[in-house]
Amino acid sequence: MKKWIPIASGLLAGFVAATISFADFSAKTNTEAASTTKSDAEKVYVPFGQKDDYYLFASGGHSGQMFIYGVPSMRKIRTIPVFSQDSATGYGFDEHSKKMMGDYTWGDLHHPAFSETKGDYDGKYMFATDVGNSRAAVVDLKTFTTKDIIQVPNTAGPHCAAFVTENTEYMFLPTRFAVPVGQKYESLDNFSDQYRGVMSAVTFNEKNQKLGIAYQVALPPWSYDLSDAGKKSSADWAVMTTYNTEEATTNLEINASQADRDYIVLFNWKELAKMVKEGKYENVGGQKMIYPEKQKGGIYLIPVAKSPHGVDVTPDGKQFIASGKLAPTMTVFSFEKAFEAVKNKDFAGERNGIPILNYKSVMEREVNPENALGPLHTQFDDKGMAYTTMFISSEIVKWNPKTGETLDRVPVQYSPGHSVAAEGDTVAPDGKWIIALNKIAKDSYLSVGPSHPESMQLIDISGKMKVIQSAPVDPEPHYAQMIKADKIKTINVYPKDVKNKDAVYKQSDTKIVRNGNKVDVYGIAMRSKFIFDAKAKRPDVIEVNEGDHVTIHLTNIDFDEDITHGFAINSYNLNMEVQPGQTNTMEFVANKAGTYPLYCTNFCSALHQEMNGYFLVKPKK
Amino acid sequence: MKKWIPIASGLLAGFVAATISFADFSAKTNTEAASTTKSDAEKVYVPFGQKDDYYLFASGGHSGQMFIYGVPSMRKIRTIPVFSQDSATGYGFDEHSKKMMGDYTWGDLHHPAFSETKGDYDGKYMFATDVGNSRAAVVDLKTFTTKDIIQVPNTAGPHCAAFVTENTEYMFLPTRFAVPVGQKYESLDNFSDQYRGVMSAVTFNEKNQKLGIAYQVALPPWSYDLSDAGKKSSADWAVMTTYNTEEATTNLEINASQADRDYIVLFNWKELAKMVKEGKYENVGGQKMIYPEKQKGGIYLIPVAKSPHGVDVTPDGKQFIASGKLAPTMTVFSFEKAFEAVKNKDFAGERNGIPILNYKSVMEREVNPENALGPLHTQFDDKGMAYTTMFISSEIVKWNPKTGETLDRVPVQYSPGHSVAAEGDTVAPDGKWIIALNKIAKDSYLSVGPSHPESMQLIDISGKMKVIQSAPVDPEPHYAQMIKADKIKTINVYPKDVKNKDAVYKQSDTKIVRNGNKVDVYGIAMRSKFIFDAKAKRPDVIEVNEGDHVTIHLTNIDFDEDITHGFAINSYNLNMEVQPGQTNTMEFVANKAGTYPLYCTNFCSALHQEMNGYFLVKPKK
Repeated sequence: MKKWIPIASGLLAGFVAATISFADFSAKTNTEAASTTKSDAEKVYVPFGQKDDYYLFASGGHSGQMFIYGVPSMRKIRTIPVFSQDSATGYGFDEHSKKMMGDYTWGDLHHPAFSETKGDYDGKYMFATDVGNSRAAVVDLKTFTTKDIIQVPNTAGPHCAAFVTENTEYMFLPTRFAVPVGQKYESLDNFSDQYRGVMSAVTFNEKNQKLGIAYQVALPPWSYDLSDAGKKSSADWAVMTTYNTEEATTNLEINASQADRDYIVLFNWKELAKMVKEGKYENVGGQKMIYPEKQKGGIYLIPVAKSPHGVDVTPDGKQFIASGKLAPTMTVFSFEKAFEAVKNKDFAGERNGIPILNYKSVMEREVNPENALGPLHTQFDDKGMAYTTMFISSEIVKWNPKTGETLDRVPVQYSPGHSVAAEGDTVAPDGKWIIALNKIAKDSYLSVGPSHPESMQLIDISGKMKVIQSAPVDPEPHYAQMIKADKIKTINVYPKDVKNKDAVYKQSDTKIVRNGNKVDVYGIAMRSKFIFDAKAKRPDVIEVNEGDHVTIHLTNIDFDEDITHGFAINSYNLNMEVQPGQTNTMEFVANKAGTYPLYCTNFCSALHQEMNGYFLVKPKK
Repeated sequence: MKKWIPIASGLLAGFVAATISFADFSAKTNTEAASTTKSDAEKVYVPFGQKDDYYLFASGGHSGQMFIYGVPSMRKIRTIPVFSQDSATGYGFDEHSKKMMGDYTWGDLHHPAFSETKGDYDGKYMFATDVGNSRAAVVDLKTFTTKDIIQVPNTAGPHCAAFVTENTEYMFLPTRFAVPVGQKYESLDNFSDQYRGVMSAVTFNEKNQKLGIAYQVALPPWSYDLSDAGKKSSADWAVMTTYNTEEATTNLEINASQADRDYIVLFNWKELAKMVKEGKYENVGGQKMIYPEKQKGGIYLIPVAKSPHGVDVTPDGKQFIASGKLAPTMTVFSFEKAFEAVKNKDFAGERNGIPILNYKSVMEREVNPENALGPLHTQFDDKGMAYTTMFISSEIVKWNPKTGETLDRVPVQYSPGHSVAAEGDTVAPDGKWIIALNKIAKDSYLSVGPSHPESMQLIDISGKMKVIQSAPVDPEPHYAQMIKADKIKTINVYPKDVKNKDAVYKQSDTKIVRNGNKVDVYGIAMRSKFIFDAKAKRPDVIEVNEGDHVTIHLTNIDFDEDITHGFAINSYNLNMEVQPGQTNTMEFVANKAGTYPLYCTNFCSALHQEMNGYFLVKPKK
């Protein structure tokens, strides 16, 4: 029997002893597969002419993108490029997106979050963070495109994000890695004194579609992992998990797993905003930084089982559930009790200047389903029941947060990190579906070499839980949110924008303008030709001199849904998309003399192959 | 009734009159959807514990990548990065792939082709070309990774590729765009004299896994579109389509659609190889260039219906079928008759110094299924029956190449470019499945904004043709090949390579070596830590000086299927994957002083979140 031990080293002896072997799971799985009824196929099948009921927005992890799936079919509908280049759309190649991406060509996208109104997904925007290069982004769901990206200073790896407050007042970005404030060089010997885990309060201005940073909080130098905003009576509050409260600086596998308890950080964002208003902050690199050891009253710690991963607020906003990934325990806490403890200063001392609430005063119950190991993250259904992913025992356990009773469990293949329920992070989840976001696929699909795809599994929760579809997915879904399809309202074509000086809608307005060595092209893409200068002998040819600075503005005047054109110049490493009605811009230096075909890269018509011209670069003498 | 006119401008009057409206198709479709039986769902459903029967390798077009799907489930299993950066795997970020990609960060991948043995897919390699930046690539199917990329000089846009000969002797790359030889600057007024459409004969050396160019052919300045190699009795020959034989230099939509006939180019690659051996070539920029007007006997033209797209050789190697995209005709030609015409010099004059075979002597039949418009590409089943995609009438027509009889037809949604049959390009197709590669999805799926996904539709051809699954797909499938799953033999982990000086398999062998301002790290990734120098106080920390040239070699010593680690340095725009057993290298200049967390980006174990360390960059004084 092959032992498959997902945890590390054998040093955490209690855990290894309890680790479920891979062979055991294979056996279980085969039994289940054999009993699969035909109705599962029907449940996930969406015939042509019908559409999926839900959109699933999944983080792409180190792919840097967001991936959109339909549920229940689990078909991938779209990649939204966010933090990484995407030549399919020209993202990172056209001027607008290149500027948004800044100095980076990739990102590590974690934990997408819908904008909310009254605690419900409103279908307008999606937020996400970049753990790789410390950024935040917003995606407009009218066009499924990224509208703004900001660099978040003083932080390294905003993993514990994004979560939005009940009316999208803030999206909070606590960081996974502690760094010296300002990210300056500093010996790790001074870790506890000089390093901090900074949390940022990010705002979104819907009018100009820009993100901003309202303030930051210099939390202790711990790792902040996951988080959730309060709801209803707890709406002014938020919770997050933190590990490495040992403040270890090396071999965290061992050294950050020493203490029996780490913490939940509980904070009141209205109190923090009030502190900022009252000037109770320091200016750090242009940011308003609150130091909680100096400004008391907004932030509290709650002890929680060893190295917690997820913390999730129940739909009614009354409880929050933390899962200790190195202890087989889900702990249910009461917001009401926490508020009481805060009010009564029912503290068990302080850590790093932050009061610790008395565990027993705040904890409602500890839940330990038999042999359920590695609890990570909890979602909810329409009855308020909880579904917790078990990373090590590879299953999802359904249980009642009001009683702690285990109600059902289903094996998943394998090692689920998160799960996502239909409208699962709102005040009113839908029930029906839970999807397990599995980290390991092993032998689930046709082999594609030493590294396998990630895997999502759709679970029907209308009766006894059952996995009814397994879908290999693009790397690497760390989190997802699922929204009712009718909440998303896209536009069909970009409307004419007569104020846009780069746009040209009439063939006769096309032109090539030269100023010194700067050449500006105002062109049109249409089925099935390019027109850069309608008056020229060859309207689909651009001729410049070697060394010219060339800017090409291109407007797609096919105001027809789905008729997208592409624009590439051969050998010039340039490609961009112009969607119906859109104007897009490409800027570069013509540094290679010669004759370069230009062509439409997005199949647009029966004469798409004829949609090409030439880019001629006259050599320097 | 909304008229949806995929072709361009209304100027091709005959075509526009015949264009089928979008509304008409919607109506047909809804009728069909209503009659979908439950068995369709069962046919495409692959429950957990079972696997798909076929791998589908689809070109990614301007995404630059290859996409792997399972059939019949149509689930996407993998992206193989080929011509574009892919941060998920670190492709274009690690040293090996960065060097392979050269100066480019994207490509336009067209027409993947399996390596063949005796005219059958052998499951060993996959080839592809880059229309965007004129390259060719080979993918190793043991690991699903790109092994080599070469730049193809003297050409611009090898669209008419890749097709391999019966035993993978050559892969031919005729080019879509004519350019001056050497791609120098040259007025388009001199197009007919100075421009050429160069074809390259690319070879693959399996021993060192390197591509090479055996010779090139300076064909006339036309656009070469699609191609196929002969089989069995025609194995020494190949055919390709060419359009813009008008040699138009602007507004090709109109000007390249004037002549009633364009050509099939028929050539004998053994004759061409013989010419090279006999020194019958000129040296052009380091390449052996054959000029067909000077070296006769290897290349012939055959007139064919207006602006042909696909040309496809029947499985028995006896016929080839060309589809005239601007004429509603599939023309069946006989190889035997062509060989006779060549032997008897049965010519109808010459074009650009190349003999034209007499159309009537070579043509077997013209096939015009009623109202079938825009024939593009033909695939075959196990009975030798032909399936042709109709771009404009949005359907696939099944017909008998021996008789011309129309046997069946099925509407697809919408505008199929190519189709792919199970083992469809081999001497022995499997039958069972055809997949339509549709260019336009319109309202098929949940809306994701003005631009919609591409769409593939799986057609059961075991009885009357029926679309049984519709799958939105990543952009943009121009071609695909489908292979029996058991032909692909992947490795589970990379084997230990004791000859690799960059690899470190023992913790005690890890080290950080400094030579002047060059720092080489020989490190290990394992569940759940990095070790860069086991003897150091903090083995998971790398400290360098600002400006140092840093090379990090990292070996994943988890020799366990699917246990992949990632490695990123926060804010340094660096990420790469190390698959089980693999050694990978990252090289960069430490140009920013400060404290930067490094971490595993590929979820690997319950303690993945603890798998991090620090990259410290001491500032210059």
